[in-house]
Amino acid sequence: MNTLSQLAIAVEDISKAKAFFEMLTGKELSQPHNVESQKVNVAFIDMGDTKIELLEPAAEQTPITKFLQQRGGGIHHMGIMTDRFDELIEELKAAGIRTLGEPSIGAEGHRVLFLHPKDTFGVLVELEERK
Amino acid sequence: MNTLSQLAIAVEDISKAKAFFEMLTGKELSQPHNVESQKVNVAFIDMGDTKIELLEPAAEQTPITKFLQQRGGGIHHMGIMTDRFDELIEELKAAGIRTLGEPSIGAEGHRVLFLHPKDTFGVLVELEERK
Repeated sequence: MNTLSQLAIAVEDISKAKAFFEMLTGKELSQPHNVESQKVNVAFIDMGDTKIELLEPAAEQTPITKFLQQRGGGIHHMGIMTDRFDELIEELKAAGIRTLGEPSIGAEGHRVLFLHPKDTFGVLVELEERK
Repeated sequence: MNTLSQLAIAVEDISKAKAFFEMLTGKELSQPHNVESQKVNVAFIDMGDTKIELLEPAAEQTPITKFLQQRGGGIHHMGIMTDRFDELIEELKAAGIRTLGEPSIGAEGHRVLFLHPKDTFGVLVELEERK
């Protein structure tokens, strides 16, 4: 089964965004933690099946730096969690959808892979393997 | 209780996007229906708490036309459903967050209101009243 696991929002500063997202959702934002491989800090709000994740840069050049410069923040990507990780990637590739590199180990220890937004209707999608 | 009710994705043509989103989610896209007030056609995938909604223009000038021209598609907005609709709007306004106009009646007969993305960290948020 595939679930919408996350909605990731890029912000300049998690501490400034915290009050708004807590008011909006009526829930508490987690303590930010550093994801060294991505050079970002991450905090999330648990929305049941889905997490709203806030990402802020933790270095000068990060995967969200260009996005923040161009748009000043906003919804950056969505996550789909699946227990058919390898099979789904094969199906997507067979349909002509490119990936951004190869699967890597995500912050929570499971495999992740981004799909190329030019092949996915402008939506940046992170596939996550359900453990 | 507030839930993440939808993730709305603007596309040029729902029929072309259907195969990808069905493969990605492993679920079926609903039949598109016209939302006359917004001049869009809408189809959705039921992801449990949340819906993934595909929006396509149904007229020359629509609320998603500029977005499609500028970005070629992508995640357009997120929905938060709340049973504290009026109270939440008052709280947000008191915190200095502007709205895009006044509440209107959405496609499913409940009240909706968009927040101004300049005040919400670049994220276009649609508040929805839980009936």
